[in-house]
Amino acid sequence: MVRVAVDGMGGDHGPSVIVEGVVMAANDFKHLEIVLVGQQNILKAELNKHKVLGGKITIVEATEVVGMGETPVAALKKKKNSSISICVDLLQKKEVDAAMSAGNTGAMVAASLLNLGMLPGVKRPGIAITIPTLHGMCVTLDVGANLNPSAYELFQYAIMADVFTKNVIKKKRPSIGLLNIGEEESKGTDVLKGAYKLLRESSLNFIGNIEGRDFFTGKADCIICDGFVGNVCLKMIESVLETSILLVNRELHKNPISAIGAWFLKPALANLRRDTNYEEAGGAPLLGVNGNVIISHGISSARAIRNAIRVAGELVTTQVNEQIVEAMTPYLNPSVANSSRNSLAE
Amino acid sequence: MVRVAVDGMGGDHGPSVIVEGVVMAANDFKHLEIVLVGQQNILKAELNKHKVLGGKITIVEATEVVGMGETPVAALKKKKNSSISICVDLLQKKEVDAAMSAGNTGAMVAASLLNLGMLPGVKRPGIAITIPTLHGMCVTLDVGANLNPSAYELFQYAIMADVFTKNVIKKKRPSIGLLNIGEEESKGTDVLKGAYKLLRESSLNFIGNIEGRDFFTGKADCIICDGFVGNVCLKMIESVLETSILLVNRELHKNPISAIGAWFLKPALANLRRDTNYEEAGGAPLLGVNGNVIISHGISSARAIRNAIRVAGELVTTQVNEQIVEAMTPYLNPSVANSSRNSLAE
Repeated sequence: MVRVAVDGMGGDHGPSVIVEGVVMAANDFKHLEIVLVGQQNILKAELNKHKVLGGKITIVEATEVVGMGETPVAALKKKKNSSISICVDLLQKKEVDAAMSAGNTGAMVAASLLNLGMLPGVKRPGIAITIPTLHGMCVTLDVGANLNPSAYELFQYAIMADVFTKNVIKKKRPSIGLLNIGEEESKGTDVLKGAYKLLRESSLNFIGNIEGRDFFTGKADCIICDGFVGNVCLKMIESVLETSILLVNRELHKNPISAIGAWFLKPALANLRRDTNYEEAGGAPLLGVNGNVIISHGISSARAIRNAIRVAGELVTTQVNEQIVEAMTPYLNPSVANSSRNSLAE
Repeated sequence: MVRVAVDGMGGDHGPSVIVEGVVMAANDFKHLEIVLVGQQNILKAELNKHKVLGGKITIVEATEVVGMGETPVAALKKKKNSSISICVDLLQKKEVDAAMSAGNTGAMVAASLLNLGMLPGVKRPGIAITIPTLHGMCVTLDVGANLNPSAYELFQYAIMADVFTKNVIKKKRPSIGLLNIGEEESKGTDVLKGAYKLLRESSLNFIGNIEGRDFFTGKADCIICDGFVGNVCLKMIESVLETSILLVNRELHKNPISAIGAWFLKPALANLRRDTNYEEAGGAPLLGVNGNVIISHGISSARAIRNAIRVAGELVTTQVNEQIVEAMTPYLNPSVANSSRNSLAE
């Protein structure tokens, strides 16, 4: 059995959606044992609304909740019994094999860093998001844990993205692109030029610099970037489908002929929605920390929670962290590892 | 008459598209005098293909061309008689009032910086792109001239975007948003926190931090960001419509019912294409340099070139640069102006 601790209190929609997702996961993945962490009376009441057909769900009490808007480190210090803290505690004590939360992202990152520490050799953690593209899935790392990485840290992100994509996305030799403002090696900040050099000299399937337009085309299986630009892009991508639908609807109201067209198009749009749906990708692993940690979007639906739990299980069964440590080993040269962090303009 | 020098040799499609755009501008804007710069025999042959009904077009010889892929500064040094150099020379000698190129962006920025210098008080130039949103146009500054601005430089970008948006986009009191990874003042790098403070204390209509999703919603009339993230976002936005159309077409081939829908939807999609068309926005001003400089996208169509020339004329007639200098004056405090450039992670 693979044991996954799930923060029952996190997320914008509260425990009802989380518990619904947990029940879906328990029914669909019989090899998982889910430890639901949070206020027992609330979680029990939610669980009683559902039929649990398979798997195993237990509850571990956590009396406190870190709010979505709270300052991470301060909240963790004040609330030792928060559902996030207890999820990570269980992981640290090896009472579970993975931990997942759709709550306060910063708090989940901070709790993981403080209690689990880093994998041997890894400098900084990164959040890896899986984005649907025109040609399969694209793993983007980092999307918010490290706003100002060094060249070596970006290089380590590429190694971690490679291992994750091979094992969880099931892509044999993932192509790795470095997000930049042009394809030429000479483009971008000194940090990016340094990362380019490290990538080119590595055994990774590095395809060079890629640009903003390549998020949708699926040019690279993995996109490596700093957490600031990754976060901005992620939020932009999330809004694209919504915006497109709004724009199309606006046009339709102008013209009855178009309204007929829209009616016929409905099945195609529904397919499109499904194919570009972030729910299917599941949660985002926090790679680099010494433990299997999954962060889910606050707006996660029950289906997204189910899939995040699935990904948590796959991190464990495919031994992603063990493989990351192994993949890092040939590159643990201290002179490279201490390359400068600060970037200068072109 | 307003005199605009146009690089006749730049752009991915070569002189034929540029000259077509120049003729459109001359016919549509009678107050403009267009100085077409480049290889005379080529430009004359192209001009002879068109009927020039109004305006005035003259040719100034430039024997050399900076290639789209050349290293900017090296190319400018080697090719003193390039069309880009001569366009900027004409502007510097005040033989024209504005200069425009769809050629090598880096070369146009470098030539402008070297020959024109900066406006008094302005630290760094920035490229301002006008993006169509669900609610009108949004001016984004910078999209590639300055990859690592200081807090004060970001603040100056806000002042310049405000003046440009008021005068050229004709928006009375533009709302200014700072691109960040969260809405709270405490989010992002130290540089962004510093810029937030300067913006909040200014007389600008600052609406706080905005996120990646706000590019499409039109939440802010102006988005202020560093040139790296701005460039990545711009290229992503450019690819969104293409990707959406590809995705919809792919769905349509799966299902004959959807194909009927697509036929009825055609007029709506055509409108949509027009409304979200970058051609209408025209070129991007290089703000902060001591002269009116417009940079156009390499892939510019003739219509985009026509509109870029229109924007060049508007920079002159509305005296954007004079107004920028005036707007900067209250904020030329040296202690603020020398704020740190390097950003640290959150």
